[in-house]
Amino acid sequence: MALIVQKYGGTSVGSPERIRNVAKRVSRFQADGHQVVVVVSAMSGETNRLVDLARQIQSSPDPRELDVLLSTGEQATIALLSMALKDLGFKARSYTGSQVRILTDNAYNKARILDIDNGAMRRDLEQGYIVVVAGFQGVDGEGNITTLGRGGSDTTGVALAAALQADECQIYTDVDGVYTTDPRVVPEARRLKVITFEEMLEMASLGSKVLQIRSVEFAGKYRVRLRVLSSFEESGEGTLITYEDDERMEQAIISGIAFNRDEAKVTVLGVPDKPGIAYQILGPIAEANIDVDMIIQNVGADGLTDFTFTVHKSELGNALKVLGQLRNQISASEVISDDRICKVSVVGVGMRSHVGIASFMFKALADEGINIQMISTSEIKISVVIDEKYLELAVRVLHRAFNLQNEGGLT
Amino acid sequence: MALIVQKYGGTSVGSPERIRNVAKRVSRFQADGHQVVVVVSAMSGETNRLVDLARQIQSSPDPRELDVLLSTGEQATIALLSMALKDLGFKARSYTGSQVRILTDNAYNKARILDIDNGAMRRDLEQGYIVVVAGFQGVDGEGNITTLGRGGSDTTGVALAAALQADECQIYTDVDGVYTTDPRVVPEARRLKVITFEEMLEMASLGSKVLQIRSVEFAGKYRVRLRVLSSFEESGEGTLITYEDDERMEQAIISGIAFNRDEAKVTVLGVPDKPGIAYQILGPIAEANIDVDMIIQNVGADGLTDFTFTVHKSELGNALKVLGQLRNQISASEVISDDRICKVSVVGVGMRSHVGIASFMFKALADEGINIQMISTSEIKISVVIDEKYLELAVRVLHRAFNLQNEGGLT
Repeated sequence: MALIVQKYGGTSVGSPERIRNVAKRVSRFQADGHQVVVVVSAMSGETNRLVDLARQIQSSPDPRELDVLLSTGEQATIALLSMALKDLGFKARSYTGSQVRILTDNAYNKARILDIDNGAMRRDLEQGYIVVVAGFQGVDGEGNITTLGRGGSDTTGVALAAALQADECQIYTDVDGVYTTDPRVVPEARRLKVITFEEMLEMASLGSKVLQIRSVEFAGKYRVRLRVLSSFEESGEGTLITYEDDERMEQAIISGIAFNRDEAKVTVLGVPDKPGIAYQILGPIAEANIDVDMIIQNVGADGLTDFTFTVHKSELGNALKVLGQLRNQISASEVISDDRICKVSVVGVGMRSHVGIASFMFKALADEGINIQMISTSEIKISVVIDEKYLELAVRVLHRAFNLQNEGGLT
Repeated sequence: MALIVQKYGGTSVGSPERIRNVAKRVSRFQADGHQVVVVVSAMSGETNRLVDLARQIQSSPDPRELDVLLSTGEQATIALLSMALKDLGFKARSYTGSQVRILTDNAYNKARILDIDNGAMRRDLEQGYIVVVAGFQGVDGEGNITTLGRGGSDTTGVALAAALQADECQIYTDVDGVYTTDPRVVPEARRLKVITFEEMLEMASLGSKVLQIRSVEFAGKYRVRLRVLSSFEESGEGTLITYEDDERMEQAIISGIAFNRDEAKVTVLGVPDKPGIAYQILGPIAEANIDVDMIIQNVGADGLTDFTFTVHKSELGNALKVLGQLRNQISASEVISDDRICKVSVVGVGMRSHVGIASFMFKALADEGINIQMISTSEIKISVVIDEKYLELAVRVLHRAFNLQNEGGLT
């Protein structure tokens, strides 16, 4: 007998029919002898409907009252799912965030979980109940309703699993797991049976939007076994996300290839190569609330250097405005930009123990005539910026070069 | 400075536009120096939408989970109204039933209020906040969400007024007060400035559906000054409902004329006139869960009597079925029924100190050739059952006879 926490997103509970399907799936785990805690989101469309209502009243809705409003979405789902479970003849009981007591700080709209009281849930589980908990919401020390921000239901699932020391936290989504890369770009992309938390964090932040990155961090912190599964497919074991690397039979060097089309590149040419220049450029950018991703500074000749960084495409205009005001002050000869770029990254904990992965990657790209504009590396990731038009070609080439279509990959 | 509790129903908060209008009205009371607690219902249509969702999942929705679901309706409204108040520049804070702490028993769907914690509301009021409370809902001793049943928002308003010892509880509806009778039947019908609780109870149970009868009982018990007002008219003092009779300048004998077309009459002819016969007939009717309103037993001749009672029209078939099975057992000669009847009642605390009101009423009806089929009286009410076709005529005749079109009426 295992204790399993399952989380179902808005699409999975988007209609009475789908809620009944979720109830059937949940009840089978209970019938198999497991204890089950279910976390649900608001029915798809509901959160947007509520936000729209709020905006009709107040253009920038009051944060406290917005949480009171939005939390009704998940509250409705827990009631409906509990009804569906009871209709199947199972014992079920719903809990709002406040009823569980999911204690958070008082940062409305983006609260952080501080503590979870597992007493009532434990008592219910021991008495054979399926426990149904509203995701995304909590309560602060003064009894105010809080929400964790969009996607917070994943975090609720992981936090409950941690509080209950559950054997596994299963996140049901509309994809059946984490893939070596986007199957729309590479048809041979393969579902990974196992991926490590670190790899998942790199994959998520690089654009594989399977899980909320915060919930993955949370799972890593509390060593919660996480599994991503499809809520629409009956069978399938999804992808297990582990903290330890032990659970992989075969250790591939590279787990997957992530990519991102949302960035633009800015280069400040001919600035004096002296201490403090990076701060002089990026300080005003940060003050303008513009997120910077990759940063490259080349060693310069003649005491001058070129400074390049990437920002989200939607921020490019703002970034150029800031640099335009700054240009004389930092004695830059020119500021140029390019928004027809993309970022491609190979990710894998295996590269820690293998040398030559970067050069292998660069050769594979060079063989296809793809020019690399920027390079950035971390312990388990190598990212390159290339011309946007080569994105699909680069991802396909790398997927094949690292043999990702075959289990085990390049070992 | 007064402390006022205001309650706005679903129609009054049925759209963002209407919620903004309620906010304007509420804020004027605050601007005038009063302390205001606002109780709101779910937006019109929302409760039906939620019930419909529940029924798509479970034909007879689980009572506990139905309350979890339905309580989201009012929760959304308190958030939206608080936003509207803040948008106008006022301080406001919303409370769910659980947050106030409106403690109820655990009778889901029809819970009764046991206690209200006024601490947080008092603190907020003293700090200049407008307090916005979800009607219709509470929490039981174990933290389960409960609802008071349909119309329960009126009861919440009255209960909060009692708990806060408010100067007045104002119920805003789509009518501008309590009338001497239905203006659709008698165009000269006049809004009453004052009506007593006892009269209001008689008027409500007789079909004047301005206020939930439970809230009126509650107000009487705790001596809460209640006022019914229109939420769509800017001015107007509505109708004040008082416990004491002192507030009326002129004491009319009759306050109003109520009527009801929903009943049917059943007569059991020729039963033995002996002790226990009423129970022998009405016992099986009660067991079949059929509500009986008026009951008349005539003194009989030859040791036989006729026994007549009224039931809701929708229950007539059931009642006749029960009596059919019973007929031989009680030795009745015949069972006859009539569903083309109506009940007309004159109501007024003044009749306590005046004799001859009944005969005055009967004469007015006789003058128009209206035959009275049944009579029933209480201390402040006289009801007659007549042929349905005379309903409008009877109400108009009585309205004129008691001079109700003029303030003061028949004194």
